[in-house]
Amino acid sequence: MNIREITVTPVAFRDPPLLNAAGVHEPWALRTIVEVATDEGLSGLGETYGDLGHLEKVRSAASALIGLDVHAQNEIYSRVSALVGDVVSDLHGLTGAATKEKSVDRVYSPFEVACLDIRGKATGRPVSDLLGGAVRQAVPYSAYLFYKWAGHPGEPDDRFGAALDPEGIVAQARLLIEEYGFRSIKLKGGVFEPMREVEAIRALREAFPDHPLRLDPNAVWSVETSIEVARALDGTLEYLEDPTAGISGMAAVANQAPMPLATNMCVVTFEHLPPAIREGAIGVLLSDHHYWGGLARSVQLARLCETFGISLSMHSNSHLGISLAAMTHLAAAVPNVATACDTHTPWQDGQDVVAPGALRFVDGAVPVPTGPGLGVELDRDALAVMHEQYLKCGLTSRDDTGYMRRFDPSFVNSRPRW
Amino acid sequence: MNIREITVTPVAFRDPPLLNAAGVHEPWALRTIVEVATDEGLSGLGETYGDLGHLEKVRSAASALIGLDVHAQNEIYSRVSALVGDVVSDLHGLTGAATKEKSVDRVYSPFEVACLDIRGKATGRPVSDLLGGAVRQAVPYSAYLFYKWAGHPGEPDDRFGAALDPEGIVAQARLLIEEYGFRSIKLKGGVFEPMREVEAIRALREAFPDHPLRLDPNAVWSVETSIEVARALDGTLEYLEDPTAGISGMAAVANQAPMPLATNMCVVTFEHLPPAIREGAIGVLLSDHHYWGGLARSVQLARLCETFGISLSMHSNSHLGISLAAMTHLAAAVPNVATACDTHTPWQDGQDVVAPGALRFVDGAVPVPTGPGLGVELDRDALAVMHEQYLKCGLTSRDDTGYMRRFDPSFVNSRPRW
Repeated sequence: MNIREITVTPVAFRDPPLLNAAGVHEPWALRTIVEVATDEGLSGLGETYGDLGHLEKVRSAASALIGLDVHAQNEIYSRVSALVGDVVSDLHGLTGAATKEKSVDRVYSPFEVACLDIRGKATGRPVSDLLGGAVRQAVPYSAYLFYKWAGHPGEPDDRFGAALDPEGIVAQARLLIEEYGFRSIKLKGGVFEPMREVEAIRALREAFPDHPLRLDPNAVWSVETSIEVARALDGTLEYLEDPTAGISGMAAVANQAPMPLATNMCVVTFEHLPPAIREGAIGVLLSDHHYWGGLARSVQLARLCETFGISLSMHSNSHLGISLAAMTHLAAAVPNVATACDTHTPWQDGQDVVAPGALRFVDGAVPVPTGPGLGVELDRDALAVMHEQYLKCGLTSRDDTGYMRRFDPSFVNSRPRW
Repeated sequence: MNIREITVTPVAFRDPPLLNAAGVHEPWALRTIVEVATDEGLSGLGETYGDLGHLEKVRSAASALIGLDVHAQNEIYSRVSALVGDVVSDLHGLTGAATKEKSVDRVYSPFEVACLDIRGKATGRPVSDLLGGAVRQAVPYSAYLFYKWAGHPGEPDDRFGAALDPEGIVAQARLLIEEYGFRSIKLKGGVFEPMREVEAIRALREAFPDHPLRLDPNAVWSVETSIEVARALDGTLEYLEDPTAGISGMAAVANQAPMPLATNMCVVTFEHLPPAIREGAIGVLLSDHHYWGGLARSVQLARLCETFGISLSMHSNSHLGISLAAMTHLAAAVPNVATACDTHTPWQDGQDVVAPGALRFVDGAVPVPTGPGLGVELDRDALAVMHEQYLKCGLTSRDDTGYMRRFDPSFVNSRPRW
């Protein structure tokens, strides 16, 4: 079952002005859609980042993989590794340091997912069955709240409205919970002075007494500030995400914080695990198959975390339905994913490259597709529209900081900021 | 693809009087053959230990798994875990401490292998393809040398003859290398006073200057003796296996030994890895899918070892062709199995439950079967004969110590002995 052709299509979709430590989301989010077609007529889907440096690596990889069997994952990984010669960095820095290993894993990931999709279709089994079998019928996700402007400057307000204070955050939570049924809440912080964000968490706790809460300032606080916030939120947070930068900084906070620390920034590839474990830096790993080298490696990561007593949850960047399907199959097949996973799905607000109906939220959870493969099909009209949007939007890399500086030239993406 | 029936068959085959720290191999080696049949007509094979306590757990598990899908590995593991209520120990103690986790993993393993065999057959792919794809076309094994008597007491000498001194060991190595083409050599030690065994290694080095050498006394030395032997063999051994007992003891030796230490005794389940890594106890893990919970978990183990800079090789107990096939698929699909694996195959001397022809040694390596599944088929006549031998031989558990004491009542399986 050999790879005959790989189609790589960059797409853009509308994204609201979501604030974070790096700045603010631009009007368009970029992704890359990977279609792998085999000589036996089956094809599979993968989804990854849309930034140009990464897109170019994905395109090079695509041509290097023609003729390989879809089972030959070790060989596919070797070929990707050989051609990712240098480190591919993000501009936003929200997913931690770029390393050679992470760069390879990021390029490899969409091909691995697409090959699993094909293998699932070939055997008539859902991808979760190729990862050990689903242990849950639906995967819970969290309401992923953002401070945000009412709309992009110069454009009409979007339907979510502004959220710049505790009341706005609580209103946003109500909207997302009403529409999706989420039973956990995550607030993206790192936007305002930390005690303002503590107030937002306290308002959420009052409004939603039974929802586990998380706060993620994307490592923009000092160790001292992190400890101060952690103590202020004792008994309120399920976990505190990436309060400060680096493994040693996180370890210093973890040593004083009353709740577990989670990360998708200081541990982003296998080589970061030994020092993080040695220093006791993290209690929860927010895994992400997009940069941990696909689904099978994420299962391996889960075993490693279980072995060392690290809990597992899942990180998200802006994404479409192929990624949501992959995340759902993975989380379904990993017994130790114990808490709700993150997703940006509400912010894509119905825009997608997959045909409607395959994925839905019931009480905040996505039922695991039971059909063959990922269980999603490409909507080719939607893909064409989104590709056209990519060509027209003028963006080629995510740059939250540059976009913010257009409206606030004094903004600097510095760390620690508080 | 649901499990319709599982057949569990204990078998016995002739075993030479191989000496080790626990005593001497009895005239019969015991194994259990597991056949899993599905509702779609496919069946798969697994092989595991034959000791009665374990056999009974395997039988209980077999009846608990009827009706499950062969992909539902998480669920199969849960069911096995629920019924393995207590720890199942070995009498010989040659594979380290028994734990609850290891007991579950040992019972689970043959079912997992059989399910992979079925899935491979269903998709027309070798099992190695379900584990990431083969990165080598043949898997190198080592010449596994044993001190041995000329024959079992009261029986004629076997064709391998005695090996009780350096000359006998070198002669045995010549025989195995001539017949199998092995390019690495392992000596099972722990039988004689350590410096006698050092002499045997030196004789092997002289006779085979280019073969990597290993020595394995099964943790029967003190820390001091281990360090003394390690220094005496500086520059001679590829690695020293389990010189002393326990993670802390191994760490103390590792701190002084000039070569890496390997283990299949102080780290035998995932829960042993954190302390072993913390203490720096081991440089090489000798994995064994029979007690690490099957092939997929062994791939996960390999990733963990790679992450922590631990090399990987493979341990063996007396086994038949189903196990050799499984070991070969696994080692083929794990890139970081960097050294020759162990196998007892020469000592089974042609006896097998699998039909001849599927597995062979070329220059000390077994070409990875490329047909569907494990690539071996049951020889039902041979199985019937071996089961009959099991019923007649009178053994129900491996007891190297008890058998040794029939000929040397003063023998005590004590540690440390030297």
